Amino acid sequence: MALIVQKYGGTSVGSPERIKNVAQRVARWKAKGHKVVVVVSAMSGETNRLIALAREVQPEPDARELDQMVSTGEQVTIGLVAMALKQIGVDARSYTGPQVKILTDSAFTKARILSIDEHNMRADLDAGRVVVVAGFQGMDADGNVTTLGRGGSDTTGVALAAALKADECQIYTDVDGVYTTDPRIVPNARRLKTVTFEEMLEMASLGSKVLQIRSVEFAGKYKVKLRVLSSFQDEGDGTLITFEEEENMEQAIISGIAFNRDEAKITVQGVPDKPGIAYQILGPVADANIDVDMIVQNAGVHGLTDFSFTVPRNDYARARKLIEEVQKHIGAKELIGDDRIAKVSIVGVGMRSHCGIASKAFRALSEEGINIQMISTSEIKISVVVDEKYLELAVRVLHDAFDLAHEPA
Amino acid sequence: MALIVQKYGGTSVGSPERIKNVAQRVARWKAKGHKVVVVVSAMSGETNRLIALAREVQPEPDARELDQMVSTGEQVTIGLVAMALKQIGVDARSYTGPQVKILTDSAFTKARILSIDEHNMRADLDAGRVVVVAGFQGMDADGNVTTLGRGGSDTTGVALAAALKADECQIYTDVDGVYTTDPRIVPNARRLKTVTFEEMLEMASLGSKVLQIRSVEFAGKYKVKLRVLSSFQDEGDGTLITFEEEENMEQAIISGIAFNRDEAKITVQGVPDKPGIAYQILGPVADANIDVDMIVQNAGVHGLTDFSFTVPRNDYARARKLIEEVQKHIGAKELIGDDRIAKVSIVGVGMRSHCGIASKAFRALSEEGINIQMISTSEIKISVVVDEKYLELAVRVLHDAFDLAHEPA
Repeated sequence: MALIVQKYGGTSVGSPERIKNVAQRVARWKAKGHKVVVVVSAMSGETNRLIALAREVQPEPDARELDQMVSTGEQVTIGLVAMALKQIGVDARSYTGPQVKILTDSAFTKARILSIDEHNMRADLDAGRVVVVAGFQGMDADGNVTTLGRGGSDTTGVALAAALKADECQIYTDVDGVYTTDPRIVPNARRLKTVTFEEMLEMASLGSKVLQIRSVEFAGKYKVKLRVLSSFQDEGDGTLITFEEEENMEQAIISGIAFNRDEAKITVQGVPDKPGIAYQILGPVADANIDVDMIVQNAGVHGLTDFSFTVPRNDYARARKLIEEVQKHIGAKELIGDDRIAKVSIVGVGMRSHCGIASKAFRALSEEGINIQMISTSEIKISVVVDEKYLELAVRVLHDAFDLAHEPA
Repeated sequence: MALIVQKYGGTSVGSPERIKNVAQRVARWKAKGHKVVVVVSAMSGETNRLIALAREVQPEPDARELDQMVSTGEQVTIGLVAMALKQIGVDARSYTGPQVKILTDSAFTKARILSIDEHNMRADLDAGRVVVVAGFQGMDADGNVTTLGRGGSDTTGVALAAALKADECQIYTDVDGVYTTDPRIVPNARRLKTVTFEEMLEMASLGSKVLQIRSVEFAGKYKVKLRVLSSFQDEGDGTLITFEEEENMEQAIISGIAFNRDEAKITVQGVPDKPGIAYQILGPVADANIDVDMIVQNAGVHGLTDFSFTVPRNDYARARKLIEEVQKHIGAKELIGDDRIAKVSIVGVGMRSHCGIASKAFRALSEEGINIQMISTSEIKISVVVDEKYLELAVRVLHDAFDLAHEPA
């Protein structure tokens, strides 16, 4: 008998029919003798509807009041899921974040969990009840409703699993696991049975948005066994996210190919190569709350250097304007921007102990005539920036080059 | 400077535009130096939407879970109203029932308020904030969300006014006060400046559903000054509900003509006139949770009597079936039913000290050829049952007979 926390996203609870399916699935786990805690999001579309309603009344909604009203989305779902369970004879009780006493700080719309009182949930589980908890929300010390920000339901799931010392936290979503890459681009992409926490982090931050990054970090911190599963399939073990490398003895060198087409590149050419120049360029960008992803600086010749970085495509125009303003100060010769780029990344913990990965990747790309505009590497990934038009081709070429369609021997 | 509790129903907050209008009205009261507590219902249609959603999942929804989800309707409105106030520069803070700590019993879907913690509201009012409270809801001792049943927002308003010792509780609705009768039937019906608590009770229970009966009882118990106003008009003093007869020295003998077309009549003829017969007839009806309104028994001749009563029209078929089953037991000769009846009532505290009201009413009706099928009287009202087709005519005739279109001299 295990204690399982299951988290269902907005699509999985998007209609009465789907909620009944969730209840059936929970009932099956319960029938096997497991204790089950269910964490749910708002029904798909509901959060956006509420935010739109708020904006009609106050174009920049007060954060406390926005949380007060937006948190109702999950509150409706927990009631419905508990009803669906009762309807098929499974005793259940719903809890809002404040009812559980998920204590957070007071950073409305992006609160962080401080503590969880597991007392009531434990009593219900011991009494044979399924506990249904509203994701995404909590309460600050003054009793105000807070929300954890978009995707916060994953974080709630992991945090409850940690507080209850659950055997596993299952994240049900519309995909049945983590794949070697997007199957829409590479039809023979393969579902990974396991992926390490670090790889998952890289996959998530690179655009494979299966899980919220924060929830994965949280799982890593509290060593919560995390599994991604499909809520639309009855079979399948999904993908287990592991935190110990030794659990993955059979681990392939490369786990997958991630990509992101939402970036733009800015290159400052002919900058005097002197200390502080990176700060002079990137300081204004950071001050404007624009996230900088890749940063590449070439070794200078004749005392000049080229400096490139990428920003979210939505922030490209704003970032470029900021750099134009500092161009004179820093004495840069030229400014080149490109918002038609894509980033493709090879991810794998095996990279640490195997050389030649980079050269193999670069050769595969060059054989298809794909020019690499930027390169950056970390311990477990290699990212390249290419012209956006080559994105799909680059992903396929790399997926083939590392034979990801087949299980590692 | 006064402390005012204002309650706005679902129609008054039915859209972002209407919510902005409510904020403007609150701001005007605030600008006059008053402290204002606003109680709001769910946006019109929202509660029904949520109940329908629940029934799709569980045809007879679990009461606790239904309250958990239905209470979100008001929670959305309080957030929006607080935002609308902040948008026009009025500081405000919203509270759910549980956040106020409106403690109720655990009778889900029809809970009763046990106590109200006014501490937080008082602090906000003292700090110059408008307090926006979700009507219709509270929390039981175990932290479960409860609802007070339909129309419970009025009760919340009155209960908060009592707890805060407010100078006045204003109920904003889609009518601008209590009228001598329905203006759709009698165009020159007149708005009453004051109406006594007892008259209001009779008017409400007779179908003039301006206020929830329970909230009026509550106001009476705690001597809360209650005023009914229109949320769609900027001017007008509405109708003040008073609890001391002496406040109404200028009170007319008759305040108004109420009516109800939602009843049906059942007559049991030729019943042996012996003790216990009323119980034998009405016991099964009461056991089936059918409300009986009027009960009339004529003095018997030859040891037989006729027994008539009215029930809600929706329950007519069920009630008739029950009586058919007992007909043999009680030895009744005949059973007559009629679901095409209407009840018309003359209401007025002045009736107590003025005789001749009944005969004046009966003469007016007979002059128009309207046959009276049943009569029942109380201290401050006379009700008659007539054929439904005469309803409007009867109301007009009685309104004229007592000259209700004109202010009492």
